[in-house]
Amino acid sequence: MRQTLDFFLNDWLGVHKLTLRERFAEHSGETFAAVLDTCEKIARDKFAPIARLTDTEEPRFDGERVHLPVATQAATDAYVASGMLAASQDYEIGGMQLPCVIEMAANAFFSKANVAIGAYAMLTAGNANLLMAHGTAKQREVFAAAEFAGRWFGTMCLSEPQAGSSLSDIVTRAELELADDPLGPRFRLWGNKMWISAGEHELSENIIHLVLAKIPGPDGKLIAGARGISLFIVPKQMVDAEGRLTGERNDVRLAGLNHKLGFRGTSNCLLNFGEGGAGAVGYLVGQQGEGLKCMFHMMNEARIGVGLGAAMLGYAGYEASLAYARQRPQGRAIGPSGKDASQPQRPIIEHADVKRMLLAQKSYVEGGLALALLCARLVDEQHSGSAASAQEAKLVLEVLIPIVKSWPSEWCLEANSLAIQVLGGYGYTRDFPVEQLWRDNRLNMIHEGTHGIHGLDLLGRKVVMNEGQALQALAARVGKTVESALQEPGLAELGHALAAALTRLGDATQSAWSSGKPEQALANATPYLQAFGHLVLAWVWLDVTLKAGQGSSDFAKGKQAACRYFFAYELPKIDAWLGVVSSCESLCKDMPDAWF
Amino acid sequence: MRQTLDFFLNDWLGVHKLTLRERFAEHSGETFAAVLDTCEKIARDKFAPIARLTDTEEPRFDGERVHLPVATQAATDAYVASGMLAASQDYEIGGMQLPCVIEMAANAFFSKANVAIGAYAMLTAGNANLLMAHGTAKQREVFAAAEFAGRWFGTMCLSEPQAGSSLSDIVTRAELELADDPLGPRFRLWGNKMWISAGEHELSENIIHLVLAKIPGPDGKLIAGARGISLFIVPKQMVDAEGRLTGERNDVRLAGLNHKLGFRGTSNCLLNFGEGGAGAVGYLVGQQGEGLKCMFHMMNEARIGVGLGAAMLGYAGYEASLAYARQRPQGRAIGPSGKDASQPQRPIIEHADVKRMLLAQKSYVEGGLALALLCARLVDEQHSGSAASAQEAKLVLEVLIPIVKSWPSEWCLEANSLAIQVLGGYGYTRDFPVEQLWRDNRLNMIHEGTHGIHGLDLLGRKVVMNEGQALQALAARVGKTVESALQEPGLAELGHALAAALTRLGDATQSAWSSGKPEQALANATPYLQAFGHLVLAWVWLDVTLKAGQGSSDFAKGKQAACRYFFAYELPKIDAWLGVVSSCESLCKDMPDAWF
Repeated sequence: MRQTLDFFLNDWLGVHKLTLRERFAEHSGETFAAVLDTCEKIARDKFAPIARLTDTEEPRFDGERVHLPVATQAATDAYVASGMLAASQDYEIGGMQLPCVIEMAANAFFSKANVAIGAYAMLTAGNANLLMAHGTAKQREVFAAAEFAGRWFGTMCLSEPQAGSSLSDIVTRAELELADDPLGPRFRLWGNKMWISAGEHELSENIIHLVLAKIPGPDGKLIAGARGISLFIVPKQMVDAEGRLTGERNDVRLAGLNHKLGFRGTSNCLLNFGEGGAGAVGYLVGQQGEGLKCMFHMMNEARIGVGLGAAMLGYAGYEASLAYARQRPQGRAIGPSGKDASQPQRPIIEHADVKRMLLAQKSYVEGGLALALLCARLVDEQHSGSAASAQEAKLVLEVLIPIVKSWPSEWCLEANSLAIQVLGGYGYTRDFPVEQLWRDNRLNMIHEGTHGIHGLDLLGRKVVMNEGQALQALAARVGKTVESALQEPGLAELGHALAAALTRLGDATQSAWSSGKPEQALANATPYLQAFGHLVLAWVWLDVTLKAGQGSSDFAKGKQAACRYFFAYELPKIDAWLGVVSSCESLCKDMPDAWF
Repeated sequence: MRQTLDFFLNDWLGVHKLTLRERFAEHSGETFAAVLDTCEKIARDKFAPIARLTDTEEPRFDGERVHLPVATQAATDAYVASGMLAASQDYEIGGMQLPCVIEMAANAFFSKANVAIGAYAMLTAGNANLLMAHGTAKQREVFAAAEFAGRWFGTMCLSEPQAGSSLSDIVTRAELELADDPLGPRFRLWGNKMWISAGEHELSENIIHLVLAKIPGPDGKLIAGARGISLFIVPKQMVDAEGRLTGERNDVRLAGLNHKLGFRGTSNCLLNFGEGGAGAVGYLVGQQGEGLKCMFHMMNEARIGVGLGAAMLGYAGYEASLAYARQRPQGRAIGPSGKDASQPQRPIIEHADVKRMLLAQKSYVEGGLALALLCARLVDEQHSGSAASAQEAKLVLEVLIPIVKSWPSEWCLEANSLAIQVLGGYGYTRDFPVEQLWRDNRLNMIHEGTHGIHGLDLLGRKVVMNEGQALQALAARVGKTVESALQEPGLAELGHALAAALTRLGDATQSAWSSGKPEQALANATPYLQAFGHLVLAWVWLDVTLKAGQGSSDFAKGKQAACRYFFAYELPKIDAWLGVVSSCESLCKDMPDAWF
């Protein structure tokens, strides 16, 4: 993977140019590479070897404590020691001032090696980054700093048992206790939070929960909808104003662990807040009623992270199945007169259908990786580029975020299934890693916004916002790639195909909204999302291939082949998806319950 | 499911007409229904309640014995007591003389309730049926009879660690010991057999292994290829000519259990034959060198069984996710001005995208069930129909067998994934059945011929054999359905679409073979298989819908809707698959290893 990753970063995205910007001026291609080297090594040495162990010995709750395999501690300790928790933070608080694209690329090694254990660190960094953006100076100093140092870990507590996708329906209640606590306005909280990853463990001396809750209105009732939601810091262990543990435990209790299909190394919890009666202590972050806004400040990065994680699980399966296919003899070539049983068997990688399954995986996982890195690079552009460039990046990101979250979640899961298929019966056993990768990856279509919700976000908001500016910005980029491709004899045909697909997508977008009624427009939002995703990936592949050039190295040939695979086997699928969008097919919308 | 099953059997396939035939003359619609009632009840009472238990407490080997959950015994005992092991056998040996289609329909309840435990019985029936077809009178009397009675269970020992899909490469060796043993020519066997389902357990007092092995030629060497393969009965416990256990154990040893992703209730074994030195005792079945032919005598039924099992796993997930969607409140309707948070939430079944996921499942699982029952009905036609009718059924089955095995394995697995998605986070936990169904179903694309191999079988053999007669026979049936549809105002459009798809498929078949070279023709055999499958399912759905009529009952409306779903959302996918077939895309075939 490293060669491809380096190519994407250095040749395709030109990350070295970022070092010309003030924030990254002390960096160079060498420091970027050193970060990648370090993370690759830790992931290989500490994370990968325990991937099966952390699946088999999933977190166990004895009524008092949550037990994880001992080796988990060594892995997270090594991550902490790498300094990656503060990778993107300022030097002055001990950060590395790394661009988002390098931070993401480095973290990709952990997702590939052991996604479930990597999650502890990534949640902690996300939590602390949020506090840096929205917390008070004191909150940053006490909570964020301890998290960057890896002494405390963090969580995000959004969902409740009755409110998963619909956060406006949370009922966790927060009541003001003391307005001028040095750690922020102090509230008491009561409620239950579901699906809390890393919600309980003993890997760190404290756990900092970021909790969405509602402050009652003057009538004592919770305010309906998202505008009633505020954000709170709720530490597991109480902390004084100097950031020392007081020895008192906050009223946050583990009600139980969820037992999952995959991703088992990450403890996943139902947490009760304030069940003792007096309420869990929480400190308000940001303004009252702006909890969702604060929480979603880092949403783009979180969603890129999910997509990149999905791509990495796919990549791990691709590599495992490629290695297997190269050494497993089975079957013979089909000659003009069938097969000759007296000949020795050949490695299965020589069979066309096995190569098809490997090429599909290659196109999905390398494509998913490229897309995620591109999005991370756009985040950097948004934060450190010129005004015009930042604005353009922001617009393109708007439409790419639902894609980068959803596309790898769907297609790199399919890659994992193909990896199982390449291994055959062996792939179906727990003696090989591919079945676990498939189980782990199945989460990604569910969390951080379900597939269906990203479809609604894309077709319902992103492509129509500001009179379609975001879609136009993406189309302009696609158009440039098409133009370049048309200049290349070997790629002109693909350029035409991509241009036609873009036109088709634009037409379908208009058709969907022809009635002007959201319910009708969004009836086929998921097929729209799928078609949009395949178009984006075709564009990414064509652009990557333009950069790889028409050379004859194995590396360049591989990129050309994966691109051709995508255009021949995958891009044509968009017609079926866009068909129902364009015709405003209302079958699903209109189906009455009784007919099922 | 029962209403749909009854509709398929009685209204669509007209199974009562079979009772006009001599073999089934003592049956009636009532006796068929009684068999279904009995099996439905046993499956519900004894198999379903232990589905999770048999997943969690998978078979365990302590070095001496294989342990299964105690409740497994009660389940298989109840199956034995039902008499279903001899469902298709003659009355005179205690059978029920049931048509294949009724036997399959009845067994479907077990696959739906607990596919892994159902496998013990179904392997036993398959084993005994094979002995009835190819065994000597004595072998039938001793081995088959004990299996039909459920005293002994059976296995199929084909694969070896180095020979999975390529059976011609097995190296298990069989040497003649005594030509005139009453139980058949007695051989000694040495070798290892892999992936042996039900290969070791204590559910029955004996296990009858049917083992493929090679008898050396005069030069002492094993004969290359399939023609060297013979079939042997290898009992776990030695048996005398009267069928009594001698108390002596044959030299068949469990080398280890495979630990699988799913289907865990079925013990899956690596068995060593003859590791003690003197060889395991085996009795030749049928002629020397005709082992594969004997083993594959029941191949059609076995492959229909796999497809039906896949459809049943899909059906179980469909029902679970439908029930969940009806009771889970989440989110609100999208009105002209967005959502109104002050309104109560509504059940998720009211969201268009959830209905899409349920309709997709409905179209996959009911379609898969219909196809499997149709194939079983064709088996009956082949065995009990008039000469012309039997010949036509045989031809149609030739092309449908790769489809009925592969299509439900792929798309009812997708149905299981959609079921998880409907349940969201809950679907990802082991507190709900859908994740297990998805794991269980993943096996079906691998065993009984992998997906890729069925593609080769379809495009490489079935559609070209006898100058395309089988394909023509299917096309004639499709043509009749199209004709009927064109008479129905509500279905004419679908009829035209199906006719166009059929033409497209025919053209693609010709294009694929335009070079006459198998390696080139088969380069895209799997996409061809996928397209062929979707066409077959569209045909099945249109035919089913013609029978359901244009009535306004919920049942009829549901069938119409699923049919329309399939034509609007699914059938158009064939263009992408056939595109690479028609253009003889050689990318995968030509891809060199070094480019990956």
